[in-house]
Amino acid sequence: MTTRPERGSELKSFGFQLSRYFPFLDWLLHYRSQDLSGDMTAGVIAAILLVPQSMAYALLAGLPAQVGLYASILPLILYALLGTSRVLSVGPVAIVSLLIATGIGKLVPLTDPAYLMLAMVLALLVGLLQMGMGLARFGFVANFLSHAVVSGFISASALIIGLGQLKHLMGLKLPSTESFVALLGAITHHLPETNWVTFAIGLGSMGFLIYAQQFLGKVLKRYGLPANWIVPIVRGGPLLVVIGCTLLVWGLRLDQIAQVKIIGAVPAGLPSLTLPGFDTKILSDLLPTALIISLVGFVESIAVAKSLASKRRQKIDANQELIGLGAANLGAAFTGGFPVTGGVSRSVVNFAAGANTGLASLITAFLIALTLIFLTPLFYFLPQTTLAATIIVAVMGLLDVKTFQQMWHYDKADAFSLLVTFLAVLGIGVEMGIIVGVMTSLLLYLWRTSRPHIAVVGRVGDTEQFRNVLRHSVKTYPHVMVVRVDESLYFANTKYLEDFLRQAIADHPDIRHLLLICSAINFIDASALETLETLRDELQTAGVNFYLAEVKGPVMDRLQKIGFVNRWGSDRIS
Amino acid sequence: MTTRPERGSELKSFGFQLSRYFPFLDWLLHYRSQDLSGDMTAGVIAAILLVPQSMAYALLAGLPAQVGLYASILPLILYALLGTSRVLSVGPVAIVSLLIATGIGKLVPLTDPAYLMLAMVLALLVGLLQMGMGLARFGFVANFLSHAVVSGFISASALIIGLGQLKHLMGLKLPSTESFVALLGAITHHLPETNWVTFAIGLGSMGFLIYAQQFLGKVLKRYGLPANWIVPIVRGGPLLVVIGCTLLVWGLRLDQIAQVKIIGAVPAGLPSLTLPGFDTKILSDLLPTALIISLVGFVESIAVAKSLASKRRQKIDANQELIGLGAANLGAAFTGGFPVTGGVSRSVVNFAAGANTGLASLITAFLIALTLIFLTPLFYFLPQTTLAATIIVAVMGLLDVKTFQQMWHYDKADAFSLLVTFLAVLGIGVEMGIIVGVMTSLLLYLWRTSRPHIAVVGRVGDTEQFRNVLRHSVKTYPHVMVVRVDESLYFANTKYLEDFLRQAIADHPDIRHLLLICSAINFIDASALETLETLRDELQTAGVNFYLAEVKGPVMDRLQKIGFVNRWGSDRIS
Repeated sequence: MTTRPERGSELKSFGFQLSRYFPFLDWLLHYRSQDLSGDMTAGVIAAILLVPQSMAYALLAGLPAQVGLYASILPLILYALLGTSRVLSVGPVAIVSLLIATGIGKLVPLTDPAYLMLAMVLALLVGLLQMGMGLARFGFVANFLSHAVVSGFISASALIIGLGQLKHLMGLKLPSTESFVALLGAITHHLPETNWVTFAIGLGSMGFLIYAQQFLGKVLKRYGLPANWIVPIVRGGPLLVVIGCTLLVWGLRLDQIAQVKIIGAVPAGLPSLTLPGFDTKILSDLLPTALIISLVGFVESIAVAKSLASKRRQKIDANQELIGLGAANLGAAFTGGFPVTGGVSRSVVNFAAGANTGLASLITAFLIALTLIFLTPLFYFLPQTTLAATIIVAVMGLLDVKTFQQMWHYDKADAFSLLVTFLAVLGIGVEMGIIVGVMTSLLLYLWRTSRPHIAVVGRVGDTEQFRNVLRHSVKTYPHVMVVRVDESLYFANTKYLEDFLRQAIADHPDIRHLLLICSAINFIDASALETLETLRDELQTAGVNFYLAEVKGPVMDRLQKIGFVNRWGSDRIS
Repeated sequence: MTTRPERGSELKSFGFQLSRYFPFLDWLLHYRSQDLSGDMTAGVIAAILLVPQSMAYALLAGLPAQVGLYASILPLILYALLGTSRVLSVGPVAIVSLLIATGIGKLVPLTDPAYLMLAMVLALLVGLLQMGMGLARFGFVANFLSHAVVSGFISASALIIGLGQLKHLMGLKLPSTESFVALLGAITHHLPETNWVTFAIGLGSMGFLIYAQQFLGKVLKRYGLPANWIVPIVRGGPLLVVIGCTLLVWGLRLDQIAQVKIIGAVPAGLPSLTLPGFDTKILSDLLPTALIISLVGFVESIAVAKSLASKRRQKIDANQELIGLGAANLGAAFTGGFPVTGGVSRSVVNFAAGANTGLASLITAFLIALTLIFLTPLFYFLPQTTLAATIIVAVMGLLDVKTFQQMWHYDKADAFSLLVTFLAVLGIGVEMGIIVGVMTSLLLYLWRTSRPHIAVVGRVGDTEQFRNVLRHSVKTYPHVMVVRVDESLYFANTKYLEDFLRQAIADHPDIRHLLLICSAINFIDASALETLETLRDELQTAGVNFYLAEVKGPVMDRLQKIGFVNRWGSDRIS
């Protein structure tokens, strides 16, 4: 990427450098007027969605409702300035809230006044970790979370979240518990204590939300409503439910008559800039949770950012994304919020509603700020069961059986690590569950490479090509055995190859020449090298010549360097 | 290996089956008289070596001297019957004794009467684990201990053992400690308390042992002694030192005059058959240590067994070896012994002294039994410093700098995991050290495969061969980019490839066709498959056609199975 410098190119190159670190310059400096209407519509719709969602996810994380709104202003602005996706909707998301609840819940009870402070410290840690990883160009570590592990983790988390909200939906008062099984038991046990009025409102909310999601659009279309009206109404489903249920509880005073639990007073006004206080003990206690949130949040977020960007041929830079998300979390930490990331479904809505640039997110943030200043009194009678219904309907979409079926069909090992992650998250908790999942997927990969595919091959006609004798009609010779191993050689699989070759030689006493085709060997580690040399010596005494063929360039270079080629005999290696 | 059954072949095949599980039938049923003299000489020499060594390693493990002798009778017999190596010298070894001392030392102090019982339970567990792994054909797990890790572990263990014996050599009374650094500090601190008479005897013993090992053979040869006399004398070095020092201490009453520590009364008589008593708590406490001893003992043992067997073109079966070693450990458990394995240097001596069959080990066991019945009173005045000298000289040979140098030259990753293991064993202890080493080697492998070698290739003349454009003079075309990735595609490296391809396309706007050569791809996991499909869609919208070429048979089969080939376009994949 070095170009001959021309007059003016330095300035341009400086602009290029600058927009690499401040991606918003790209769209702001060349803002096109035709993008404005889409950005405004999307900004409004995302705000309509975000108001109930952010409050619901704050409650899910064990925090007061307004904290969700606090986490939906500055984080959005910072991500819009520093993130590379133009349409990602950053803010509170369900999975991260679950991780927050379990991570902090291990340290202090929900009722502890330190709980909120810990959530802010957690956001600070997540922000620092993500920023640090981004600056150190460590984005690749997220690659070790395989698709199978993420899928199993999200499905299990969705179940835990859904079940956890069931008690709010039914108006049950249960102690919080992390384990899926314990939760299931507690709910079953306390079933008779259900508050039926609460449950009816919750079920009604769920019913309307599902109806709005699945059918309302078609119905409105049939009634001839213009398309640009339909989208806001359909996407406004959660807000409509919130307004409807609030009016219902307020009108009938259901909070007093039927003990329907309501949100109560939500403090009005913007969050003040605060510095979360902490000591090193708290930092080290929260570090594992922060690490998991940093990675899981990043993986979820970048997946949706990439998939949406590719639809418009825009590019997402993984390390810059980490910086953008890190800045968003630092913003949350300093404005009384809690960890945030890019939400999958909300980003899709933002994109579909016409968001073209980060301006949409800036508009959303502005509307959330207005809500905090003027509208919080309206949430007083909002029943908690309605927010629970919002969460349940949202996480229902995260349950993903299809991926498991596809993997089961294509690759049992992937399906297995998905299943292990799923069960481990349900059985032993979200944090340990994902660690078990990652370990399983890595061990399965090692297991797979430790038993490489090895084929006895023959010559195709008179060509220089060799193919598997079991798959192709090829020429073989009585004194020559040609074997191809389809894996790099390293300590965990070299004995496997050795045993295969020993057995092959023992089964064919006529063999005088053994040729190992190395075209699929991308490296040979020191253990494998030693095994090869030992085997060569043994075969030599047994009267069998051992040749290495089609050794790749980089592998050959290293073998040359240590004199292996000379020791082996340069006529026996090519 | 299915052969057409002929008359009589069933009996032969039954014999073949039987000797697979009882390998001694192979040599016993066809015993050749010319093998007898070699077996007898080797049996005697191994016994001469084993008497002092087994007592020394028992003391090293924190056990009374006779326990070492107990562990050198039945285990040898059982291995000779069930193991596949004909020359492996099973019994107490230094590294395993160190692992025993640290593993049991964590649970009870040296002086606890339960210590001996725990050693027997440990032998029982090791025996069951090895036998179980052998029967389940799980021998391959030992492959995950890379040569680098084993080398670093053994070198560090040798240092710890040597330093640990220094206090006995100098007659210091120090509390036992696992950490190398703590030990070094304690010895330095107590230096003035050195018992100089003890130290002199120890240094003298060491001097003689090194002299015998390095020079005595040449000297005797120069004096014209026949070769079959020289070997027993040289190999008898340890026994000569033991006899000499015992006479010295006894003659001058150095134990009373100079407080030289002696072995004292060694109970006479064969061990009785005992069942070690235990409860589940003890079993679970000892399990990690047992697991490490099982694997480390097996890896050390099979390495020397294979290398010696290959010199005579005999075969070692890893799983049957586990059964043989497991039986030996069960034998130790039931006769008051402690965990054993095949010793490296002793096996080499056994081999060099002419051992042809397992009969040599049976003779050794018989001589150890005779020693226990008749000779134990002679060990009363044996000074402990002499045994310490024996151990120090033996483990000096285990310090291996050469392997590190070679690996450093060939492969920094291997050298790094060797170094990490070495330092971790010294710094945090033998058990955690080897675990850290294994984790490091596996992570380095994953790291390596997560950043595969990717080459832009061009066509060689008009052939169907493609080579790296940076290494060869090849043809390229302006609208076509051909890329070869030298690694299987899985979750940890698929994003790396994706980024490479995206960047390549972005750098060359003329490209209309992207061809990925898959000849080095041995499998594609579900995550990678998804990435490929997403990338294909993106490239499509960007006007670039994405082709897969030279897909291997097994990979193609699986892609066919899930309909990937049809989705991709069968004209674009080959």
